[in-house]
Amino acid sequence: MNKSRLEAFSDGVLAIIITIMVLELRVPEGSSWEALRDVAPTFLTYLLSFVYVGIYWNNHHHMLQLASKVDGRVLWANLHLLFWLSLLPFTTSWMDESGFDPVPTAVYGIDLLLAAVAYFLLQRALISQQGSDGPLASALGRDWKGKLSPILYLVGIAAAFWVPYVAVGVFVVAALIWLVPDRRVERFVAEHGTSGR
Amino acid sequence: MNKSRLEAFSDGVLAIIITIMVLELRVPEGSSWEALRDVAPTFLTYLLSFVYVGIYWNNHHHMLQLASKVDGRVLWANLHLLFWLSLLPFTTSWMDESGFDPVPTAVYGIDLLLAAVAYFLLQRALISQQGSDGPLASALGRDWKGKLSPILYLVGIAAAFWVPYVAVGVFVVAALIWLVPDRRVERFVAEHGTSGR
Amino acid sequence: MNKSRLEAFSDGVLAIIITIMVLELRVPEGSSWEALRDVAPTFLTYLLSFVYVGIYWNNHHHMLQLASKVDGRVLWANLHLLFWLSLLPFTTSWMDESGFDPVPTAVYGIDLLLAAVAYFLLQRALISQQGSDGPLASALGRDWKGKLSPILYLVGIAAAFWVPYVAVGVFVVAALIWLVPDRRVERFVAEHGTSGR
Amino acid sequence: MNKSRLEAFSDGVLAIIITIMVLELRVPEGSSWEALRDVAPTFLTYLLSFVYVGIYWNNHHHMLQLASKVDGRVLWANLHLLFWLSLLPFTTSWMDESGFDPVPTAVYGIDLLLAAVAYFLLQRALISQQGSDGPLASALGRDWKGKLSPILYLVGIAAAFWVPYVAVGVFVVAALIWLVPDRRVERFVAEHGTSGR
Repeated sequence: MNKSRLEAFSDGVLAIIITIMVLELRVPEGSSWEALRDVAPTFLTYLLSFVYVGIYWNNHHHMLQLASKVDGRVLWANLHLLFWLSLLPFTTSWMDESGFDPVPTAVYGIDLLLAAVAYFLLQRALISQQGSDGPLASALGRDWKGKLSPILYLVGIAAAFWVPYVAVGVFVVAALIWLVPDRRVERFVAEHGTSGR
Repeated sequence: MNKSRLEAFSDGVLAIIITIMVLELRVPEGSSWEALRDVAPTFLTYLLSFVYVGIYWNNHHHMLQLASKVDGRVLWANLHLLFWLSLLPFTTSWMDESGFDPVPTAVYGIDLLLAAVAYFLLQRALISQQGSDGPLASALGRDWKGKLSPILYLVGIAAAFWVPYVAVGVFVVAALIWLVPDRRVERFVAEHGTSGR
Repeated sequence: MNKSRLEAFSDGVLAIIITIMVLELRVPEGSSWEALRDVAPTFLTYLLSFVYVGIYWNNHHHMLQLASKVDGRVLWANLHLLFWLSLLPFTTSWMDESGFDPVPTAVYGIDLLLAAVAYFLLQRALISQQGSDGPLASALGRDWKGKLSPILYLVGIAAAFWVPYVAVGVFVVAALIWLVPDRRVERFVAEHGTSGR
Repeated sequence: MNKSRLEAFSDGVLAIIITIMVLELRVPEGSSWEALRDVAPTFLTYLLSFVYVGIYWNNHHHMLQLASKVDGRVLWANLHLLFWLSLLPFTTSWMDESGFDPVPTAVYGIDLLLAAVAYFLLQRALISQQGSDGPLASALGRDWKGKLSPILYLVGIAAAFWVPYVAVGVFVVAALIWLVPDRRVERFVAEHGTSGR
């Protein structure tokens, strides 16, 4: 089956998720810089979730470059990933409105963790289609980022019950790791070409 | 006429429907696990509708693979399907907010039923274009899932007036039937190739 | 310039407009059939606007089939059309919430009229690019639907100040005229082929 | 890497931003022309932001025509641009609800300024990929509009603390400059062809 509609649908869902969060940004009460400062935590939380959705879109984009065909299992693995990402506006909003209380902050981390697990399962579904010597498996290599992230999310979830701000700090670090350019797929494509359109 | 814009528009509408429902998830009042548990029914209802939209997207994707051209009748049959699906956030929300009262639960089932009818009409419109020996008719075969689903929805609608939770159980079962991979189209494509792009 | 992004962007905006209107559908207060009946006018108004956006999407789809290239003038003529269509959720909502009072009903008609004018200007922009003997001008022919619609909208706007329900009836008729299949473009494509991708 | 998903994702986000703003348009209280007149400032503010998003979509469309491949740096530069644009519904809404008070009006200008900076960085990222003798650098030439706009935004931001309506006037002028057709890319494409699909 053709992968272009899977990409188009995922692009649509991710575009909506990333934009819906801005609806959480309530207009400040009053017209002063102080009023704006009051929405700063919400703004920064929105920024963090924006970056996370951006990371997933980026990685999804790279991963699908190395896929040529998709089957029913891949479609559902993809919907599973989109499900956990579609909860991000909700978990972001709860964490923010609670003023970074332990449980909401932990739930935010659990959502990130489940999205990471779903992404891993999608990767597996694509690799199992290509075989373990396929282009995706080769390009991924040891995938230390994919292995480190869930550990950081677990650390963050645990830390949320101790000092929630430490948890948020861990989630920020986990995002920054992905912002550092990952040349694996690009290098692979440069050397071997894509196996797509 | 080219089918790519029909696919793109449908992807857009389905992506928005699936994401709008998350807006129904109100942030829990309080920061405790109990507060989160209070939104659990809403969460599970959202999950059910998410899965239904996912099923429709999946089936739509498969069906359109076997179509090569679309005409005006197909465009309107498709919009008809999107109309009933676009009401899902509304019917989901009413069923959930009423605490699964009989009428809202039945209306949820009626929406599912009308979407199934619309899907069937879209299938007919595509088949009538290709002729009954076209690739779509051949791939569908006896289409027992397509025939069983409306019966289950009718059972669910009737059950809603008796014990609404039984109705919800029937709707869950009807969804699970579709989650089991359907290899008809994939097998057909593997054997005969698509008749598209 | 390539027309595919213009199509994709228009599909996105139209998909969102058509789906946003469902957000206007408030969950009925109570769990009875009577409660549902209370939202019936809103439902029917939503259906009317859904059909109008569907008509525009359909016609837009057909028209762009006969365009090969787009220039800056076409891009802005298209955005102009999308602007008036993007106001439909607003004008629909006002007409519905006012209980079909004269001014809101007239404003709904004015929005339809301005969208029709914008569509006409987009058509002109595309034809002026191709020349008056181009495929679009030939396929359109006398375009009696395109000429009748604005007259009906004007009649509806005037009627709104007399009996608003007559105005709504006129808007329904103007929509039904477009629902009757229009074979011009399809016939032209069948005879001459598209001038696109 | 292929640029088509970057275009599709950007189209999705811009389509949502442009349509979300219509949600800010509250239904007038009452059914009279006076009630409609009360929402006129909101309407005009919405129109201004609609035009700005339209301008960015237009320029984005043109710029990407001259790009053939995109890398990780381009993906993030693009997300950075989308981030500032996604704040437009928020800054538009604050400026409008405050009745054009100094700080909210200045913040609206700051958002426009940061979007312009992000657009410039995206341009740089694309040019650095092609080399300074690539098609984009050649087509841009001296880029006086790209250089004038940030200056106008700065003037507007300063004016907001003096007479906010002057600031709004400056933002309107900065938009009008872009509405005048820019033939650079079209001329370049006509002469040299695109370097894309």
